[in-house]
Amino acid sequence: MAEAETPNRSPEIRKDKIHNRWVLFSPARSRRPSDFKAKSNPQPNNQTECPFCAGHEHECAPEIFRVPADSTNDWKIRVIQNLYPAVSRELDFQNPVSLVGDVAVSGFGFHDVVIESPVHSVNLSDLSPAQVGEVLLACKKRIAQLRSCDSIKYVQVFKNHGASAGASMSHSHSQMIALPIVPPTVSARLDSMMEYYKQTGKCSLCDIQPNELLIAESAHFISLVPFAATFAFEIWIIPRDHSSHFHEIDSEKAVDLGGLLKLMFLKMSLQLNNPPFNLLIHTSPFQDEPSYAPSTHWFLQIAPHLSGVGGFEIATGCHINPVFPEDAAKILRDVRISNNNI
Amino acid sequence: MAEAETPNRSPEIRKDKIHNRWVLFSPARSRRPSDFKAKSNPQPNNQTECPFCAGHEHECAPEIFRVPADSTNDWKIRVIQNLYPAVSRELDFQNPVSLVGDVAVSGFGFHDVVIESPVHSVNLSDLSPAQVGEVLLACKKRIAQLRSCDSIKYVQVFKNHGASAGASMSHSHSQMIALPIVPPTVSARLDSMMEYYKQTGKCSLCDIQPNELLIAESAHFISLVPFAATFAFEIWIIPRDHSSHFHEIDSEKAVDLGGLLKLMFLKMSLQLNNPPFNLLIHTSPFQDEPSYAPSTHWFLQIAPHLSGVGGFEIATGCHINPVFPEDAAKILRDVRISNNNI
Repeated sequence: MAEAETPNRSPEIRKDKIHNRWVLFSPARSRRPSDFKAKSNPQPNNQTECPFCAGHEHECAPEIFRVPADSTNDWKIRVIQNLYPAVSRELDFQNPVSLVGDVAVSGFGFHDVVIESPVHSVNLSDLSPAQVGEVLLACKKRIAQLRSCDSIKYVQVFKNHGASAGASMSHSHSQMIALPIVPPTVSARLDSMMEYYKQTGKCSLCDIQPNELLIAESAHFISLVPFAATFAFEIWIIPRDHSSHFHEIDSEKAVDLGGLLKLMFLKMSLQLNNPPFNLLIHTSPFQDEPSYAPSTHWFLQIAPHLSGVGGFEIATGCHINPVFPEDAAKILRDVRISNNNI
Repeated sequence: MAEAETPNRSPEIRKDKIHNRWVLFSPARSRRPSDFKAKSNPQPNNQTECPFCAGHEHECAPEIFRVPADSTNDWKIRVIQNLYPAVSRELDFQNPVSLVGDVAVSGFGFHDVVIESPVHSVNLSDLSPAQVGEVLLACKKRIAQLRSCDSIKYVQVFKNHGASAGASMSHSHSQMIALPIVPPTVSARLDSMMEYYKQTGKCSLCDIQPNELLIAESAHFISLVPFAATFAFEIWIIPRDHSSHFHEIDSEKAVDLGGLLKLMFLKMSLQLNNPPFNLLIHTSPFQDEPSYAPSTHWFLQIAPHLSGVGGFEIATGCHINPVFPEDAAKILRDVRISNNNI
């Protein structure tokens, strides 16, 4: 466990240039950065009769595909419909006539689930890099299917781990919601990255110099704590090569990313006591204008939940982070993971 | 308790025209809107030795003022410094030289606490309309002091009720954070309201026709569920007269608002089982450009916490609300509060 000495720091307000938003950094008076741990991470359920386990496939909503495609009881990954979808694939979508006043459109879209293992107790971090890569490629395959629907503008892939991070099932899974609109945080990110490109001629993520914010590197990716991290010990994994869309990933890069992602999960779990977290894939809308391509760059975000969100954050969109990114990066960099675990 | 029959509804995606963001409305399969209740609302502490109680003033950070000003042990409201401020009044502030690249400024600002009663067990909803009005006027007075500091651009007033809404003390209090920057959600709101004004020639809140979204009215305010509410049973209280800044409120309006706020707390507590919530005052920056005045209109937001926030909301800024605003408004409208309680 890393017990780094960290300097005394004064509060600072930093700009997240990727999302164009401010974050307050307020060193906690009572705790050193290395003292941050999840108190407990209750799992939402641990049923002996979990519908996501092998043998219970008939209790789930319809399957979309499985990996391997020709497997029967020996499947490794299943992509299925969500039994309680936030949007409905059965509605028609029509663009709103006006964008002034009270605008509402039908809740058309797709809400799917990726079951990451047939075994209830297996977490993503228990899989091999190649197996994590297969989960990523299953997401890529499903996104390719969703792209064929003209009304779908954006697909959000996300994983909720732990009840307080929003999970309602403890069996390891991710979700994806395909939407007929571009969500507000995505629009803000695209606009902010375009603004950086206009001012500098460079992509803001290609231009990152991680230095003391670096955690680890692989052949095709780097992992770091972002300069204006929203959450304590937040991690971003960024492709080294410029690419706007996650679904452009190939098999070799997926396995490489699988290894780095697994390493980040192991470091986070050891240092922060298996915290609740969200894993998010930030990509670009399907029908992006070509002018956006040089400025948009996909990446993964891991957001541990070590403290709650209160009224200030809801009102202002400005988060208060008690751990400086340089301190979080040093601590995560110094967590040693045995090669046997990777 | 209201047990309204509500129609079956299909998922819908609505635009919040005040914040320019989309919200997904997904009727919960398993629950009627009238079945929504807070499961429990654990309070953060209930110390016999609470520093906010009368007689413990010496355990607090320095006092800024009290109400009445000349009171001793018989104070009704105290405004004090926060012992663990998110920003520091002891730093200097300098505007950043550049806004490209990694931008950081010192964490200068003020973080204050409004203790709303000397008695530990008294909630805001236990006070009379006039007493709630006095709390609002204490906020107004403190904001007037903060306005005299040239570096302060925006003051966020907020109240966290219940541990899961961010409260760390159970003694009834609000907080205010005065910032040298305009927070991202505030900028987005101002821009969105300005856009509406440009397109229609009207202020978007003056132009609201509450109809079936109305909950209650007073002489100077209306309360309603917003058309694209972010949270289930979210309530807005809007001044009838156009006004950009909360601190323009006078004594008569403060008492009137106190009564309507108390009524909303009582209805929410009875219908939703004393849920954790945030109360937020949405106002305008101090040095607002005059061109913004016709389009900006302050209001209060009450955000009950009936379900958690997961990765989808964090990634997209798009919330999933299981209760349609029309249903929430009807249920809250129908909750009967005895006049003896008001």
